[in-house]
Amino acid sequence: MLYPLYAAKETVTVVVDVLRATSAICTAFEHGIARVIPVPDVEDTYFYKDHDDVIVAAERGGEVVEGFSYGNSPFSYMNDEIKGKTLVITTTNGTQAIEAAKDSQIILVGSFLNFDALTENLRNIDRDVMVLCAGWKNRFNLEDTLFAGAVTENLLEAGFSYATDSDAALASLSLYKSAKYDLFDFLENSSHRNRLERLNLEEDVKYCLSFNKTRCVPYLKGDSLIDASKNGGLELLKSALQENKV
Amino acid sequence: MLYPLYAAKETVTVVVDVLRATSAICTAFEHGIARVIPVPDVEDTYFYKDHDDVIVAAERGGEVVEGFSYGNSPFSYMNDEIKGKTLVITTTNGTQAIEAAKDSQIILVGSFLNFDALTENLRNIDRDVMVLCAGWKNRFNLEDTLFAGAVTENLLEAGFSYATDSDAALASLSLYKSAKYDLFDFLENSSHRNRLERLNLEEDVKYCLSFNKTRCVPYLKGDSLIDASKNGGLELLKSALQENKV
Repeated sequence: MLYPLYAAKETVTVVVDVLRATSAICTAFEHGIARVIPVPDVEDTYFYKDHDDVIVAAERGGEVVEGFSYGNSPFSYMNDEIKGKTLVITTTNGTQAIEAAKDSQIILVGSFLNFDALTENLRNIDRDVMVLCAGWKNRFNLEDTLFAGAVTENLLEAGFSYATDSDAALASLSLYKSAKYDLFDFLENSSHRNRLERLNLEEDVKYCLSFNKTRCVPYLKGDSLIDASKNGGLELLKSALQENKV
Repeated sequence: MLYPLYAAKETVTVVVDVLRATSAICTAFEHGIARVIPVPDVEDTYFYKDHDDVIVAAERGGEVVEGFSYGNSPFSYMNDEIKGKTLVITTTNGTQAIEAAKDSQIILVGSFLNFDALTENLRNIDRDVMVLCAGWKNRFNLEDTLFAGAVTENLLEAGFSYATDSDAALASLSLYKSAKYDLFDFLENSSHRNRLERLNLEEDVKYCLSFNKTRCVPYLKGDSLIDASKNGGLELLKSALQENKV
């Protein structure tokens, strides 16, 4: 909801929804999905249903939508069925955030699961970086903010500096420093962990808070996310910057 | 900007704009102002100009608006001229925040300067409390968030518990715990401290970050703030709760 106040065109936007959309998307790439089409509404998925080589996923309020076999649990994507296929996915917060960011020069998808691969690319692209936290129904949430803090710490160590109006980045960094030695514990009282606990999804939470399970770098090309690391890597991203010159 | 997502009618809303609107208002009450009329726009003040016993103040972007002798520096209110008068004030962020909160059952104005007096009243009213951070042009800022964290810590110590969706309160508390031993130092890189430093207002910042310079409790009655501590105290607030019953 606040994104337009901060958005600038010459920016690499990293969309994050740690619990669980962007973690699920990273896991799907790790297990061989060829591309991911994020769509905002459940209705938008109907067009793709019953297509060959397409998996359709829908989550609302933490649960798989009735009539769908996939939601946004990372574990559900750890299977061979998804290899080479296209995933069409809509979730409560994450896919809307990707939609909101569509004007930025480059959109990447981040999670703790692809942290190193993502930040290596950010360092090498060497542009302003904006982390767009999906939050929960437009509200602030802790876990996405912690991820933003982790990215901030990483880029500061690489010699990046704060932008002019960076109170949000400063706050995320301070929170991350308080939390980094036990993210799961830090989130004990957080609304989303409690929400998922009620749904027996504590294992999901733990998995989504673990670092570097994949080297994928999901990159939005047109309407689809592809894994930049398997499609040209940094060169792909650099040429995208040239093409999308503001 | 996010306030409507969190607002609930049965709430005591504390509006805070540490740098500097609500700190200035508290200082004005400490030095004898009788009431404060916060207005959103500079034009809204014209009606009051040249009225006897009225002081008109306008600040935009950290500076006193041309043609006005008062802005939002607390120090400017430390004089005998203001005693018994009405202050009409418009500022970049703070007065808009008061306007935004107008639907809540009780609106109080907070700052570090009246921290103990404010929180004692909050403890005794014993209702849900919402801290509305004015921020900067609708963006997040650090200093108001730290104040929210200080209030959170205080009320938790008094036996209050978190509301259902309290990630923002959790984050503010964690930030405050990291910052509390030297707020000024913690804000070193903050956007607003730097903005005010450029305007030679570092002394203002230091003053606004000091605790308990006044026992005033500014309370919005109709369109005016009055000092509840001198107009019935807790009884005034409790009877307001009865009158504004939702």
